Amino acid sequence: MTGHRFPADVYARRLAAAAAIAADAGLAGLVITPGYDLRYLIGSRAQTFERLTALVVPASGAPTVVVPRLELAALKESAAADLGLAVADWVDGEDPYRLVAAALGGAPAAVAVTDAMPALHLLPLADVLGVVPVLATVVLRELRMVKDGAEIDALRKAGAAIDRVHARVPDFLVPGRTEADVAADIAEVIVAEGHSEVAFIIVGSGPHGADPHHECSDRELRAGDIVVVDIGGSYEPGYHSDSTRTYSLGEPSAEVAQRYSVLQRAQRAAVDAVRPGVTAQQVDAAARDVLTAAGLGEYFVHRTGHGIGLSVHEEPYIVAGNDLPLTAGMAFSVEPGIYFPGQWGARIEDIVVVTENGAEPVNNRPHELIVVPIA
Amino acid sequence: MTGHRFPADVYARRLAAAAAIAADAGLAGLVITPGYDLRYLIGSRAQTFERLTALVVPASGAPTVVVPRLELAALKESAAADLGLAVADWVDGEDPYRLVAAALGGAPAAVAVTDAMPALHLLPLADVLGVVPVLATVVLRELRMVKDGAEIDALRKAGAAIDRVHARVPDFLVPGRTEADVAADIAEVIVAEGHSEVAFIIVGSGPHGADPHHECSDRELRAGDIVVVDIGGSYEPGYHSDSTRTYSLGEPSAEVAQRYSVLQRAQRAAVDAVRPGVTAQQVDAAARDVLTAAGLGEYFVHRTGHGIGLSVHEEPYIVAGNDLPLTAGMAFSVEPGIYFPGQWGARIEDIVVVTENGAEPVNNRPHELIVVPIA
Repeated sequence: MTGHRFPADVYARRLAAAAAIAADAGLAGLVITPGYDLRYLIGSRAQTFERLTALVVPASGAPTVVVPRLELAALKESAAADLGLAVADWVDGEDPYRLVAAALGGAPAAVAVTDAMPALHLLPLADVLGVVPVLATVVLRELRMVKDGAEIDALRKAGAAIDRVHARVPDFLVPGRTEADVAADIAEVIVAEGHSEVAFIIVGSGPHGADPHHECSDRELRAGDIVVVDIGGSYEPGYHSDSTRTYSLGEPSAEVAQRYSVLQRAQRAAVDAVRPGVTAQQVDAAARDVLTAAGLGEYFVHRTGHGIGLSVHEEPYIVAGNDLPLTAGMAFSVEPGIYFPGQWGARIEDIVVVTENGAEPVNNRPHELIVVPIA
Repeated sequence: MTGHRFPADVYARRLAAAAAIAADAGLAGLVITPGYDLRYLIGSRAQTFERLTALVVPASGAPTVVVPRLELAALKESAAADLGLAVADWVDGEDPYRLVAAALGGAPAAVAVTDAMPALHLLPLADVLGVVPVLATVVLRELRMVKDGAEIDALRKAGAAIDRVHARVPDFLVPGRTEADVAADIAEVIVAEGHSEVAFIIVGSGPHGADPHHECSDRELRAGDIVVVDIGGSYEPGYHSDSTRTYSLGEPSAEVAQRYSVLQRAQRAAVDAVRPGVTAQQVDAAARDVLTAAGLGEYFVHRTGHGIGLSVHEEPYIVAGNDLPLTAGMAFSVEPGIYFPGQWGARIEDIVVVTENGAEPVNNRPHELIVVPIA
């Protein structure tokens, strides 16, 4: 493996599987512009520009990469050459959407496109093909949701790395320091512990902890604060960590301790519910039911989790209404939280991998409210 | 003005103009997900996630922002509150596309979406609306292409800042240093000279200069190298610089000097061709004709330029086939280049603003091949 992608045979298997699923779904093929699907299928980190770059995976026949001649060099970072993919390059003034149509073998009855394809490319493509595409997610999620051994290994390494970061967080949580100060320290340690880059850092202290999407601010930490720390990074070849722990600057009040203990039971219940055949929404309900039974249901204002891999948020989503049955190899977060506007919030989050025997967490730090002694 | 956006009245004018153009075009309205159009219309720097955030601008009636409840806080950084925009927030399990339909006033006959809208949102939206949208570009480009005074001022400041960076580039071009070393120095100076961030840095030395999209590498500079330096950054409130100069490490050969002088005339001819009423493709042809007449046409492998503003590449594109007439207030690059594979390349690039009297360049560094003395 180069640090940046898996060996070519991994991508060859994925391309063959994608074509087979497309054929089963009655599609002429898949059209994949830059984004996580392209990275998954050929290891390319190309970005989307106004000039079309697209991988065309026909249901039968060989894939083609349509690429602006100017960006041929960037393609070399992918597995395209090792895979011997056909390349259809084009220059300004030519119509790249016709190249896509040709690579699909003519006028298709049905074709699927990646989630990430921007309207800029999707609408002219639909025009040239004479058909409104469907989302390739329904095809690719079967593949991308179920991680192979190399991917699970990458998620485990990422999880262990972010655990080492959380182990150091108490040292950074000193009254008088700002959330931004703490975030800067965490950013440094995320990289020092082996991630290639920081993906996100939430330091939500006191009332900021009650906003699940707060990032960080110049608010100074105070004795008595409850602090939500939700952090993650990218670990080569591009798999993500994502773990939340909640810290208390000094001993928590009885009410905080009592409510937190319910949250801890809710998170545990959701993890315990994970096994093949259980649906995503049943895992969500497992956490929600514990909180609701304790009168805290209304304070849990988001879904229980999201899949993770090359992207931080991907299928499967652990949310009411998602009746997808879990299968071994899926990886997602289990992260119930409780949020008391203007006061405080708490969240506990581990990434788990579904195995035949239930959930394997890749995060293993203690789940308790972590009390940071104050001077 | 905050540093990050213009006063609210700027956005109020833009929203009113966008609605009026949509009405003229027979559209029920515009649907704008995060990206440059959203930033242009309400000063929001929101990012696209799997949960839909969208500004709905009906052709008549008040705009609405559809936003996940979790991301309400991020909306505060935009002008939405100052503008008193209606907010339709939603939580997981609800269907945000129906909120968009409602904000459009029911089932529309025709609706336009931003270029940046990903298939993930576009295809379900098309489903709920029962109509395949068209690109809002055709509506918004009329607005976004023609810069107002505040925008032109921002482009001038950005241009002056990148000129100050180019003034320092010769100091960095020392034989034995790598392209990456040079790029690191340039990155520091781009920020030191007032940009809020680096947008891109191309240092193409020797044969790398023959690849127009080369970025930088570990190649060491050598005496005799021709070096293409194409750099830009973002200048608050988010307008871009983009300027290329070509450097010679020591005296160039007669052939290089001769070919470069043709390129310089080609760039000048294109700038001289700029005035209201002239088409974009005529500007492209002005540069290309000079190179072709000198037998160098085949070495100019890209378009002559691109619009610039909140994004580095936007309308108008200065390219063959674009018969758009220029109007005062448009801003774009004029950047012909010549590329000799395996040997060397050269490019000269200024950003120009169209005025009633012709082109006003915002870059003012000398256009000659800049000879860097070597020890």
